[in-house]
Amino acid sequence: MKKEVKAGDIVEIKTDKETVKGTLLESYDPSVYLIKLDSGYNIGIEKSKVKSLKVTGKTKAAEFPEAVIKPKKGLPGISIISTGGTISSRLDYKTGGVKWLMKPEQVFALSPKLLDIVKINKIENPFMIASENMSPENWIDIAKTAVKLLNEKENEGIIITHGTDTLHYTAAALSFMLQNLNKPVILTYAQRSTDRGSTDTVLNLSCSAYAALSNIAEVMIVGHASINDNFCYALRATKCRKMHTSRRDTFRPINELPLAKIEENGKIEILSKEFNSRNDKKKVSADTEFEEKIALIKYYPGANFDIIDFYKDQKYKGLIIEATGLGHVGTEESKFNWLPSIKSAIESGMTICFAAQTFYGRLDPYVYAPGRELQKAGVIFLEDMLPETAYVKLGWVLGHEKNNEKIRELMLKNIAGEFNSQISEKTFLF
Amino acid sequence: MKKEVKAGDIVEIKTDKETVKGTLLESYDPSVYLIKLDSGYNIGIEKSKVKSLKVTGKTKAAEFPEAVIKPKKGLPGISIISTGGTISSRLDYKTGGVKWLMKPEQVFALSPKLLDIVKINKIENPFMIASENMSPENWIDIAKTAVKLLNEKENEGIIITHGTDTLHYTAAALSFMLQNLNKPVILTYAQRSTDRGSTDTVLNLSCSAYAALSNIAEVMIVGHASINDNFCYALRATKCRKMHTSRRDTFRPINELPLAKIEENGKIEILSKEFNSRNDKKKVSADTEFEEKIALIKYYPGANFDIIDFYKDQKYKGLIIEATGLGHVGTEESKFNWLPSIKSAIESGMTICFAAQTFYGRLDPYVYAPGRELQKAGVIFLEDMLPETAYVKLGWVLGHEKNNEKIRELMLKNIAGEFNSQISEKTFLF
Repeated sequence: MKKEVKAGDIVEIKTDKETVKGTLLESYDPSVYLIKLDSGYNIGIEKSKVKSLKVTGKTKAAEFPEAVIKPKKGLPGISIISTGGTISSRLDYKTGGVKWLMKPEQVFALSPKLLDIVKINKIENPFMIASENMSPENWIDIAKTAVKLLNEKENEGIIITHGTDTLHYTAAALSFMLQNLNKPVILTYAQRSTDRGSTDTVLNLSCSAYAALSNIAEVMIVGHASINDNFCYALRATKCRKMHTSRRDTFRPINELPLAKIEENGKIEILSKEFNSRNDKKKVSADTEFEEKIALIKYYPGANFDIIDFYKDQKYKGLIIEATGLGHVGTEESKFNWLPSIKSAIESGMTICFAAQTFYGRLDPYVYAPGRELQKAGVIFLEDMLPETAYVKLGWVLGHEKNNEKIRELMLKNIAGEFNSQISEKTFLF
Repeated sequence: MKKEVKAGDIVEIKTDKETVKGTLLESYDPSVYLIKLDSGYNIGIEKSKVKSLKVTGKTKAAEFPEAVIKPKKGLPGISIISTGGTISSRLDYKTGGVKWLMKPEQVFALSPKLLDIVKINKIENPFMIASENMSPENWIDIAKTAVKLLNEKENEGIIITHGTDTLHYTAAALSFMLQNLNKPVILTYAQRSTDRGSTDTVLNLSCSAYAALSNIAEVMIVGHASINDNFCYALRATKCRKMHTSRRDTFRPINELPLAKIEENGKIEILSKEFNSRNDKKKVSADTEFEEKIALIKYYPGANFDIIDFYKDQKYKGLIIEATGLGHVGTEESKFNWLPSIKSAIESGMTICFAAQTFYGRLDPYVYAPGRELQKAGVIFLEDMLPETAYVKLGWVLGHEKNNEKIRELMLKNIAGEFNSQISEKTFLF
């Protein structure tokens, strides 16, 4: 009996502990049934623990519409950069994993609502990768493609589709690399693949289209704002991060409110006073010099300072340290006093910055004596800047500047909204 | 004129940009006025930018009550372990920093409300350090002191006062080290020093006392739940983290609701069904074997796998990697393919576990092919366990077990509530 079930079968499996319903996937481990639950999670059930297994149906292979996009007349134009990620993928019931859609166009053909809002002029496809595989050279590729499209008159704005895992890093990189920005640059995503009923692609793309036509000439992440399917937030690229492994409203603003709320009917409510306005007379350019020899590390109790020495020996040019509290690492009282290694690395020419491992709030080196000593040693305390944004900014700053004092000045200068001097109480856990 | 101002003076300083009022502190940098604002933040103002400076008053040195605690009759008894941190400190207007209170007792003398709730039997003081300076040997010290106090009949429970920066790491360590727990173990803190009007010490200590007398025999962090001063949460030690650099309600539950809500009048509302109940017949013991040769690292785009090779070369025994999304790092598509280094480290005997850098949500290695490949290589995917808890648990597990299969089993076994199989929607950004 059990041997007859096939990948794609809808099954009901009972063990002593539970009853599981879902679609059977191909499992690489022959001792395990791999099941896709309706929630989208895949779980493995050891065959030896199965008391009963019933086939209740069969999943039809999803059908994909032809990737022919018929532009509607009279709509404003945008262009799209498609880079991979779940939004460009479909579920493969054979392996239980996801596969790329055959052509980047298909994701938009699967979202007909988008085509009622905008005319898609071009779809550029510099590469197709999962976002955990991005590296700074991919950011540079995207920035150069974006500049080309933003300087074309026919585009009111652009949408970049991208995997979620490192979307906020790419978004921050574009914020620094795109100089003299003239139009909206929207990054969007899906947490559930585009062919599935619970996909977030449709709403995210529609809201992205409205944002791309708006007056907000900023780099923004647009996506689900809540568990509901009726509105999105536009978040400033340098002030947000992925906060949940699987929720559709995973991107959250940190130390700032969203720039705007975008409803499914296109209504845009501005929530932040500070943003650059659209200016079609401007010509955007790409400033992509980037120092890749940088790293991001986290301090924790028991952390050995050998990691600083390692990066110094490897001739790294800069480090972001996720410090505890108001900006602390182990000092004299500790078994692991980081101060001598930090001093020596800075003396050798390395730039060392602190950002908050709490994410929310602001560093303050003045409260405790060791903080002041670290500052004296040359550590740059990055206020309320996110560690991930700080990592991206550090690479970009070091790509442009070798002088220590100028590096410090640039790191502390608000270039792309990465600092917020007035953090409202409401922003905590927003 | 300007030269006459002294540390302790209340001043009003005007620059072109702003007017700042606060208390002048001693500044290590002679070109800067260091000001303590009413909000508690210290800021530096360059003297060259000052347009006017007015002295409007003088701050009186805070007076500290004698550290004589007169126990009230008929109250239930607890004991306290005082380890340092802001809760044990007072503001020093001369340096602008904080200093330890003269004696650990003073913090409790400054919180008379506590003494109406419980009789303090003993105050143990194994050391006084800022919590960023803690290391695993301090956790072991605290665990041994806790065991002694918990096995004394006269104590209904214990309170541990501690700095905030790494409080959640210590709390997690005690959760694994205290075996056969019989009574409540409460860790508490202050974000504002005990001598200040806005201090959180008083409410945190009262609520901690109520929690220490409760039926919940768990290791818990108790502290402000909101911006208001009227109730606290008790959070499971393995499921929370410091989420804000300075807010008093900085500790938040992750992937779980709080265990309980504790009102200032002592009313306790249980929010979680699962906890161990008080059992005074049990005898608690300390199981403190800990492998210190472990590390916690974070993956990010552009991260070089040389860091894995470094820890392997240094003969580290285990690594927690904060992976992106559902549990990803760069693989074949990436400029930096981490897979070969991870495989080689695991083959050399190192334990490598993944935890979520989003903090919220659960890993799932089954969704994408590289996840399954990493799992095949031996990476342990730690579900919804916090990376910081995972780091602590890894050291504790490796202190006890050398066999790879048993290490995996223990890492995935729910020992101290570090896993939650049913994460409610409400827990996100709670």
